[in-house]
Amino acid sequence: MTVSALKKKILIVVMDGLGDRGCKELGGLTPLQATDTPNLDWFTRNGIAGTCDTVDIGIRPGSDTSHLSILGYDPLEVYTGRGPFEAAGIGLIGRRGDVAFRCNFSTCDEGMSITDRRAGRIDKPDTTELVRALAGIRIDGVEAIVKESTEHRAALILRGPGLSPEVTDVDSHDNGPLNRSKGLTPEAEFTAGVLNEFVRESYERLRDHPVNTRRAAEGLPPANIIVPRGAGSFPDIQPFPEKHGLKAACVAGVGMIKGICGVCGLDVIDLPDDCTGGCSSNFISKARAAMRTLEEYDFVLMNVKAPDVCGHDFDPLRKCEVVRRLDEMAGHIRESFRDDMVIVFTADHSTPCSLGDHSGDPVPIAVYTPGNVRDDAVTFSESGCTHGRIGRIRGKQIVPMCMDLADRAEKFGA
Amino acid sequence: MTVSALKKKILIVVMDGLGDRGCKELGGLTPLQATDTPNLDWFTRNGIAGTCDTVDIGIRPGSDTSHLSILGYDPLEVYTGRGPFEAAGIGLIGRRGDVAFRCNFSTCDEGMSITDRRAGRIDKPDTTELVRALAGIRIDGVEAIVKESTEHRAALILRGPGLSPEVTDVDSHDNGPLNRSKGLTPEAEFTAGVLNEFVRESYERLRDHPVNTRRAAEGLPPANIIVPRGAGSFPDIQPFPEKHGLKAACVAGVGMIKGICGVCGLDVIDLPDDCTGGCSSNFISKARAAMRTLEEYDFVLMNVKAPDVCGHDFDPLRKCEVVRRLDEMAGHIRESFRDDMVIVFTADHSTPCSLGDHSGDPVPIAVYTPGNVRDDAVTFSESGCTHGRIGRIRGKQIVPMCMDLADRAEKFGA
Repeated sequence: MTVSALKKKILIVVMDGLGDRGCKELGGLTPLQATDTPNLDWFTRNGIAGTCDTVDIGIRPGSDTSHLSILGYDPLEVYTGRGPFEAAGIGLIGRRGDVAFRCNFSTCDEGMSITDRRAGRIDKPDTTELVRALAGIRIDGVEAIVKESTEHRAALILRGPGLSPEVTDVDSHDNGPLNRSKGLTPEAEFTAGVLNEFVRESYERLRDHPVNTRRAAEGLPPANIIVPRGAGSFPDIQPFPEKHGLKAACVAGVGMIKGICGVCGLDVIDLPDDCTGGCSSNFISKARAAMRTLEEYDFVLMNVKAPDVCGHDFDPLRKCEVVRRLDEMAGHIRESFRDDMVIVFTADHSTPCSLGDHSGDPVPIAVYTPGNVRDDAVTFSESGCTHGRIGRIRGKQIVPMCMDLADRAEKFGA
Repeated sequence: MTVSALKKKILIVVMDGLGDRGCKELGGLTPLQATDTPNLDWFTRNGIAGTCDTVDIGIRPGSDTSHLSILGYDPLEVYTGRGPFEAAGIGLIGRRGDVAFRCNFSTCDEGMSITDRRAGRIDKPDTTELVRALAGIRIDGVEAIVKESTEHRAALILRGPGLSPEVTDVDSHDNGPLNRSKGLTPEAEFTAGVLNEFVRESYERLRDHPVNTRRAAEGLPPANIIVPRGAGSFPDIQPFPEKHGLKAACVAGVGMIKGICGVCGLDVIDLPDDCTGGCSSNFISKARAAMRTLEEYDFVLMNVKAPDVCGHDFDPLRKCEVVRRLDEMAGHIRESFRDDMVIVFTADHSTPCSLGDHSGDPVPIAVYTPGNVRDDAVTFSESGCTHGRIGRIRGKQIVPMCMDLADRAEKFGA
């Protein structure tokens, strides 16, 4: 039975890669510790705080596994490799039983031997036109669906009965003869055969395509074959809206995050052009979109990619500037905040500027809703949040905690 | 994929039984709270801190189960009883499938009825000589390997196909007729038969041994039979070096700790004679050995037994003195510390002086490496460490946390 109080809406703001370690350039402080954040501190002081290991203590998460965790899934159970999430990231969201691949548009000679794995880094709109020529391929009852991504990249979904992801790559990751895909189990031989036949058919359809004739005339390598790798099956995930009884959406600029959320059954919201997913992205514009989305939805996951970019670039000073702008964004949210909301500020993982990559350091988390218990944490940082009553939690515990604070949790027992 | 940064080395300093409860003799403080520890505090102030339940909240660990946990294993899965670890502690490290026993050298009469379970507390070098007479015993394809321990104690390993640890003790724990070992399952009947035959054969080989003839002449009880108890199979442990890709060693004076580390695949380092494992042990000499070992190895677990001894002796004042000397040791480590190191100061369990035995109270933990996040913990004690960002963790989370801080963790996802 649910409680009778007003059910609140939930907004989770994921500041990608926000956590850090002590930076020499900042006198041993982290960008969060070194930057004044009055608005994030306001939410921390008036809310509850803690630290969070998105996957588990000491685990260095990817953005995919960490977002699955934040959405309440156990990535050890549902993470099946990158293929399906890459496909989903460009809007190719598969079903249970589908097998997805990452692909390249490549250049091969008449013996189908690769001469340029990236077909001269061909890009849209050429790839969009070439993909049209691949529509409707069907092999032994299996449908092949291709979609172009950035530059020479694409995704492929095979859909039909009896498929298995246990097949080897066609991509040899080098110039020269293609691999023939093989089944790693007897049951997967069928899928390997379909995949090999798809590759041959892509060559048949693309070799004399007008785009490639034009490229040849311009001295550019033709994109005359599709080369798949990284097979993965779409995970058998209970859709988030069904699992929690929430109408749920995602507000994100980055394809991978949109893909993860899409696979989990969240609606992916179209954003204004100034929400780019880069450092120059307009955070306030994105926050505005999230608050607007929350009028129609019960749950919104919002991702801001910029702090992660600064970490990967080994740039603590720029990360401080991004933190300052994130705090302005928090100020905007604070102004437009409504009492029927639970808001979470956290990160998907740390991306220390000293490391230039993700680390397993736990990230700060602050949760605010009117009427929550006020604890002793007063600043939003890796150290400041440790004084709060949330303690040290796992990412998959965030949604249950929010469901309770939103007065939406089911009672267990009587 | 691992990150490309310099991979650091890891040193875990286990101060055995260091945790305590409030002591009347110390005005209600623990020895750690009552003693000035400037060097341990330095590591705490500049590092991250927390508290640790080595096995789980409320569990009173043994030194064996706690060290297994600190090495990242779940003792609920791999702890198979004391036999194998006792055997390993005296250098008898078995393989998967072996069954190990604790044994006594005992005295029996001609009817093989025990008259002195400890054979007058016989000791080396007599037991060493007697063990030589037991070499090469082989029963139904099973090899029996015996090694002497302290005083009348010894360990036995049975090695061969089809063995089971599900057998009852031969030792009746009293004078009088021996038990015949029985299989607790039908499959274990074979092992019980081999064990009974081994006991008979030990009597045949020892009854007229020159050592026993001499002892009889001196009026001492002969050690004319080996009496086994406490069967256990060697756990199927993935070796620590293989599991983590670390060249790993143990620096410890106590046999049991060396045994645990040996079973987990760590190299056991020979120590100078002044590292005794007792209260008078030279801690700085041991720390020097650990730092030297770390030049060749990626990972060192160092155990200092003294605080545990004071706890078992109900002696808080002596424990304070040991704490003071442990802090001097930490000062030595601080001076010789190198930037490519992650260091952990913690305990395997609490041994409260008011209790005289292990308790389940969580122990302080401080972790330092240059560039870690600085948190708000400033003193190394049961209470002081609670202000740090590590929070309250389990022992098996220490190694994953260190692997991440050492920039050795694999990324999970993309």
